[in-house]
Amino acid sequence: MKKRVVLALGGNALQKNGEATAEAQKKIAVEVGEMVAELSSRYEIIIAHGNGPQVGNILIHEETGATEKAPAMPLETAVAMSQGQIGYWLSQAISNAFIRRGKTPKVVTVVSQVVVDKNDPAFKDPTKPIGQFYSEKEALALSREKGWVVKEDAGRGYRRVVASPKPVDIVEKKSIVNLVEDGAIVIAAGGGGIPVYRTKVLRRIKGVDAVIDKDFAAEKLAELVKADIFVSVTAVPNAYILYGTPEQKALEKISAKEAEGYIKEGYFKAGSMLPKMEAATAFAKKNRIGIITDIENLEEALAGKAGTIILKKA
Amino acid sequence: MKKRVVLALGGNALQKNGEATAEAQKKIAVEVGEMVAELSSRYEIIIAHGNGPQVGNILIHEETGATEKAPAMPLETAVAMSQGQIGYWLSQAISNAFIRRGKTPKVVTVVSQVVVDKNDPAFKDPTKPIGQFYSEKEALALSREKGWVVKEDAGRGYRRVVASPKPVDIVEKKSIVNLVEDGAIVIAAGGGGIPVYRTKVLRRIKGVDAVIDKDFAAEKLAELVKADIFVSVTAVPNAYILYGTPEQKALEKISAKEAEGYIKEGYFKAGSMLPKMEAATAFAKKNRIGIITDIENLEEALAGKAGTIILKKA
Repeated sequence: MKKRVVLALGGNALQKNGEATAEAQKKIAVEVGEMVAELSSRYEIIIAHGNGPQVGNILIHEETGATEKAPAMPLETAVAMSQGQIGYWLSQAISNAFIRRGKTPKVVTVVSQVVVDKNDPAFKDPTKPIGQFYSEKEALALSREKGWVVKEDAGRGYRRVVASPKPVDIVEKKSIVNLVEDGAIVIAAGGGGIPVYRTKVLRRIKGVDAVIDKDFAAEKLAELVKADIFVSVTAVPNAYILYGTPEQKALEKISAKEAEGYIKEGYFKAGSMLPKMEAATAFAKKNRIGIITDIENLEEALAGKAGTIILKKA
Repeated sequence: MKKRVVLALGGNALQKNGEATAEAQKKIAVEVGEMVAELSSRYEIIIAHGNGPQVGNILIHEETGATEKAPAMPLETAVAMSQGQIGYWLSQAISNAFIRRGKTPKVVTVVSQVVVDKNDPAFKDPTKPIGQFYSEKEALALSREKGWVVKEDAGRGYRRVVASPKPVDIVEKKSIVNLVEDGAIVIAAGGGGIPVYRTKVLRRIKGVDAVIDKDFAAEKLAELVKADIFVSVTAVPNAYILYGTPEQKALEKISAKEAEGYIKEGYFKAGSMLPKMEAATAFAKKNRIGIITDIENLEEALAGKAGTIILKKA
């Protein structure tokens, strides 16, 4: 039986050197496609990708290009748009990698709603900057007009900040499992998922302007689909302690307990390696395997021979 | 056994009185959700929606909001974005209609690539205007710079025109069937699908800037998933001959042959009722049922008691 793997792919990974045209991003998607097609004979694969730079650009276009007749879409809908965009590029690239191997592709992008808790403390303290920069005057006007929380961003101007709540469920989880069991490569929970919450009394789902960390969403997805392995695919072959110092040390096979120790000691950068380590460790604690590595080492890492591999007991 | 129904839903249907905010469109999606949840106990339902006004607005934002670092997305990617956007609104609305009925929702939006023939004569004569209006000077510059075909549009300025080729296949068809057989309501082929073609020698799939008619794409989808009934859901309860004249006559149960006769005689408006009649008739000829009606009469029409119902033999 094939092992089930969830890959969390960075949104930055598709924009090498900041090249943000569709053409440039599709080229990089081709590399992802090759890798996925290669691994698919041995693994069931579900891809959860980031969308930071892509949804950022969508928001810039929506906000600066808006007119009265063509109003700007809100953040939650912009996330849905980025899922269509990136999911299409990845689906096509993976399909072509199968066609190149003489195989019939079966690849599906599922537009995914990820449930968060409306009482998540993150909503009381929005910290995640999104979209374009504004002058103080513009920012305050937008804050009054749209209820945005705006913050000064390191001397570069003002930006909107939104909450980054934790994922608690994925609306489409059962259909994702159904597709995987039917032999499809599935792309889901893109950009951390479209953030939704359940209303208190009626339990309806409703969109909310927030950003869910893509590693946390991918880890939640891995849990829900009962994956065997969760991999945060990033730009470096391993997670490191003392990163960038002469004592820098790559982490190889470690226990979830060791990983938690390193996390507590503050070895990992917030918004960068920290969420990856937290997600991989959380998954490992469920008696499964959490990996952090780059695309070049992915195959070896899945075989237990490269990357940072976190196990319940090392 | 439930009958399998493909609904082709107009993109205009979500924008009543031209209200294009996400909020306004979501409100209309709620009505669609109620109808789908109501019908789902008796029918398997697949929804193919249009995206005319939505992708139009996306293109306006992409083009007027583009910067060097945040370049505009091409049409084919904009279609993918509109699938995420509209698919999300519909998924959420349908899910909530199930929740309101005390049922667990299973609704999936599949990002869909629709294959066209690169030799389709439509590519030699692009006719479909898309995106914003330009001055003659701007239009000619864009034509030189991006290779766009631009045309003067009824004295209102210049617009880009693209080809509207016929759909020949849907890349994700097998997964769509799999989801429906698993009991899901599926939203697919949104906006006529992301237009792709197969390269000559290697048979890879590649995006192309074009617009596929949503009724034709929905009919192709209905064929491929072996639907029993195809419905073009529009703003009027029936198709009419002599529409808008004192002799106006609603078409009720007619044969595919009669329908073809009316089509040949030029009773239906191009880009409006004509593609709906063509699609419903093409489907009826395959010994199935093609319907044209509005949302209010949908349930009755499916029961054979309202709408324009086209049968192989009436």
